[in-house]
Amino acid sequence: MTQNIYDNDAFFSGYSQLPRSVEGLDGAPEWPALRAMLPAMRGLKVVDLGCGFGWFCRWAREAGAASVLGLDVSENMLTRARATLPDPAIVYERADLDRLSLPAGSFDLVYSSLTLHYLENLKALFAAAHRALVPGGHLVFSAEHPIYTAPSHPGWSKDKTWPLDRYLEEGPRSTDWLAKGVIKQHRTIGTYLNLVLEAGFTLTHLEEWGPTDAQIAAHPEWATERQRPPFLLVSARR
Amino acid sequence: MTQNIYDNDAFFSGYSQLPRSVEGLDGAPEWPALRAMLPAMRGLKVVDLGCGFGWFCRWAREAGAASVLGLDVSENMLTRARATLPDPAIVYERADLDRLSLPAGSFDLVYSSLTLHYLENLKALFAAAHRALVPGGHLVFSAEHPIYTAPSHPGWSKDKTWPLDRYLEEGPRSTDWLAKGVIKQHRTIGTYLNLVLEAGFTLTHLEEWGPTDAQIAAHPEWATERQRPPFLLVSARR
Repeated sequence: MTQNIYDNDAFFSGYSQLPRSVEGLDGAPEWPALRAMLPAMRGLKVVDLGCGFGWFCRWAREAGAASVLGLDVSENMLTRARATLPDPAIVYERADLDRLSLPAGSFDLVYSSLTLHYLENLKALFAAAHRALVPGGHLVFSAEHPIYTAPSHPGWSKDKTWPLDRYLEEGPRSTDWLAKGVIKQHRTIGTYLNLVLEAGFTLTHLEEWGPTDAQIAAHPEWATERQRPPFLLVSARR
Repeated sequence: MTQNIYDNDAFFSGYSQLPRSVEGLDGAPEWPALRAMLPAMRGLKVVDLGCGFGWFCRWAREAGAASVLGLDVSENMLTRARATLPDPAIVYERADLDRLSLPAGSFDLVYSSLTLHYLENLKALFAAAHRALVPGGHLVFSAEHPIYTAPSHPGWSKDKTWPLDRYLEEGPRSTDWLAKGVIKQHRTIGTYLNLVLEAGFTLTHLEEWGPTDAQIAAHPEWATERQRPPFLLVSARR
């Protein structure tokens, strides 16, 4: 089973104070770009892989989704999600996403935000997602960009460049982010996309996300993110 | 029109001495991976965008292609291609690939090796390629990887890392490679793939190429290429 760092008290405490935890989707700078890749939500049956505090689940319902299943491995996050604005059409369940099992042909949208880079078995996850979708159903996900996860020392150099190495060396990376020894799985863009294609999906869009000019005007400190993209956004259809 | 650096004498002289120029496809370390992405060649009508000395055109014929059209902007390269093993089923023509025009539905395979990163107008090129292919036809190309083309100073740092910056800043890059002021167009992987998809293609495979273990055993000096991939290989179908 993948490391469940969100149930580490120090990590959870730090994570709970991030803008995206306090402000929800509006605190996630990549959200407008990811939202633009989503289908019209009205009437859709949705599953959110790595739902966290449930911000996306609640947004999906407000946008007209018929039902939302939010899955997460973290009891900490599910407890808080369940306590926020209860809605009978949103169900939160604990799940090990490395052993994902979903009923066949039951969803119109499989969504996942910044979760897949923690998982070890994406081949099985994309196969389960494909099986769970109706024909024509949508897969939309974000993950940390491989340029971001690859390096031995992922931090800016003195000359303001990003010291890339180990890009083609896929596998676990241990980083100290909010807590010591957080384990992420580094994969290339090629691996992400080929796994999606081999599961039977058709790729519809790929975005290597960086802040827009307007976002940099509002947050000048984000400008460095354009030197190397922090996130990968992908959409595909069954 | 795109800079025609291959008709610069100093550049052409240097280029002519590279292993891939002297040894042909066997001197190009990414060739086995690119070849694996090609369809069975027997009976195919093929066009090669940026055919250079014609190594691929001749290989395609040996592999059974019915006919091959080799296009290149460089008179230097076409002259040498035409002088090598003339074959009535191979036609070499001069073309500005930024204004590519091909007859509709006339090819089974559009191929391009390490050429697209010189071009300014890929949207028009992919549209022309799509129109030129029969339904189900194949597009297979390689280009310099965006991680390779992005940096202000594309060379290894003292600590053996690749100093990535400007990744999301698309546009021309001037580098000194074989001659001063060689102009390449930097684009992200997202831009390459979205242009392919928007032209109407279905993506079938993406490879961020680095040398295999066997290749590194034979050429230990290539090991650094696994720190950051030098080439992007893409296949798609109409």
